[in-house]
Amino acid sequence: MFRIGVDLGGTNIAAGLVDDNYKIVDRESVKTNVPRPAESIIQDITRLVNVLRGRNNLEEKDIEAVGVGVPGTINEDTGYVEYSNNIRFENVPFIELLSGMISIPVYFGNDANAAALGEYYAGGYNVKSFVMITLGTGIGSGIILDGRLIKGINFAAAELGHTVIKMGGELCTCGRRGCFEAYASATALIRDTRRRMTSEEYFGEDAAGKTVLWDLCGKDTDNIEAKHVFDAVKLDDKLANELFSDYTDYLAEGIANIINILQPELVCIGGGVSKAGEMLLTPVKEKVARLIFSKNSAKNTEIELARLDNDAGIIGAAML
Amino acid sequence: MFRIGVDLGGTNIAAGLVDDNYKIVDRESVKTNVPRPAESIIQDITRLVNVLRGRNNLEEKDIEAVGVGVPGTINEDTGYVEYSNNIRFENVPFIELLSGMISIPVYFGNDANAAALGEYYAGGYNVKSFVMITLGTGIGSGIILDGRLIKGINFAAAELGHTVIKMGGELCTCGRRGCFEAYASATALIRDTRRRMTSEEYFGEDAAGKTVLWDLCGKDTDNIEAKHVFDAVKLDDKLANELFSDYTDYLAEGIANIINILQPELVCIGGGVSKAGEMLLTPVKEKVARLIFSKNSAKNTEIELARLDNDAGIIGAAML
Repeated sequence: MFRIGVDLGGTNIAAGLVDDNYKIVDRESVKTNVPRPAESIIQDITRLVNVLRGRNNLEEKDIEAVGVGVPGTINEDTGYVEYSNNIRFENVPFIELLSGMISIPVYFGNDANAAALGEYYAGGYNVKSFVMITLGTGIGSGIILDGRLIKGINFAAAELGHTVIKMGGELCTCGRRGCFEAYASATALIRDTRRRMTSEEYFGEDAAGKTVLWDLCGKDTDNIEAKHVFDAVKLDDKLANELFSDYTDYLAEGIANIINILQPELVCIGGGVSKAGEMLLTPVKEKVARLIFSKNSAKNTEIELARLDNDAGIIGAAML
Repeated sequence: MFRIGVDLGGTNIAAGLVDDNYKIVDRESVKTNVPRPAESIIQDITRLVNVLRGRNNLEEKDIEAVGVGVPGTINEDTGYVEYSNNIRFENVPFIELLSGMISIPVYFGNDANAAALGEYYAGGYNVKSFVMITLGTGIGSGIILDGRLIKGINFAAAELGHTVIKMGGELCTCGRRGCFEAYASATALIRDTRRRMTSEEYFGEDAAGKTVLWDLCGKDTDNIEAKHVFDAVKLDDKLANELFSDYTDYLAEGIANIINILQPELVCIGGGVSKAGEMLLTPVKEKVARLIFSKNSAKNTEIELARLDNDAGIIGAAML
């Protein structure tokens, strides 16, 4: 039996036809083009579902479910998307609207939870407890215990990005100071990089000679990406090494926190930053090992890089 | 059917006969008298079980289970207590030794988890997801989701006390800097109080006139207790007010973290510090409400003071 997963993002609405082996066998997407009315976005989701059905000669009864990962707060009790900044939804009766247009059972969930679910099912991890941390613009996360998503009383659980690691520290988008997201997201790394590059030590006439980061960003700090820092580390750039060391410190603190709380079998790191690969994973694992409470336990939580790419969001949505 | 719960502490071994309504119907205890051999402590546990049986005319078959809450790291797979600082156990084959002396099924678990379980069952909370935070010498905690303890892969989960809220901050007993326990335990409050009292502002010839804390502790900072701070707040003492405000800040950050991660139905605050009652709970609730991510959700996690006293440890042990 097939399912259809829809990853409703701020930029694209990406849909995939997912088979029983968690493989995407066909896919289609359109631009999200926010802001526009919720009805119009939901019409596009319907259209994507119908395109995938038509192209694969499937009737509605051949599709077990349509699941949509939404970048915001959803309420499974009411079927409403309560709030989404990315797609400008506020109190949208999402399930009612979508199920009015499709005769297939319709489900929705938070997009980070969907991505965790997709990574968990399609990644081939043989574990029962699993925490996914997605390092990108923000920090998304999902917690799976005994094979089930932890959603919390209001479906807003697993906001690991919004746990404080440095009280009174950097201001977070959520309004709190010192959140994990404000230190360990790609955005935070970029902010810190820009800040250091424009500090007295690395700014000025002979700045380019002091760090390759100035070359890598084309002499414009507006162009800085997390990748530039990792590239500069490979060139043994002093400033980049310092930034990278701080960044892995932050990441390790956040990961050690969730390990001390849940001791899952696996913590999986995904998102754009995770593309740095082993050069990121190795120091993070070493630092986490020094920070966790159960240093001497026979077994401890493993830490790995995500195996799937962006497809986790679509596959996970299909599993909602 | 009865069960027997044993709270194996650093000072006392307290056992209770627990009925089906989670009531302790008889109890007995002896001093722990550490250090002494594990075998000798386990003999005392057996003796307590037999005293409770004898006094209540119960045969071994009338007791469903004996559960022991251990202040340390246990391994349910091996039946070993891997490590306990309080009772000086290291790799003790606890279950083997105890079940060699009693013909009743024997269980064990971490004492903080047992206390959470006891509070959850005997406290009459009508919730499925529950986090208990015990504020004492350290910070103990237990997490119950869908009515079951979260133990983690190595039975060492729910160490909320050892999650960092202020990276690089105060040194914690676990070796990490900035742990929740190093800011929100009674010990931390006492440390901060002592530090401020002996600072230039509050120390010296006319010190007693500057804060009532000097009177409350009998002019000796070695005597300071958390209760003195709360008593001084009631007298509107300036220094105590500042210490109390900082303390509730720390407590709120740690509680907001666990809410953002798990969104349980209830967070329950127990331990010596919780005896401060509403004067503690009210500001903590206000501060947490400002810090949580899901400020606008229809439902949010409730925060309450623990309903049981120290009996939670015995009752919970019986439920292990």
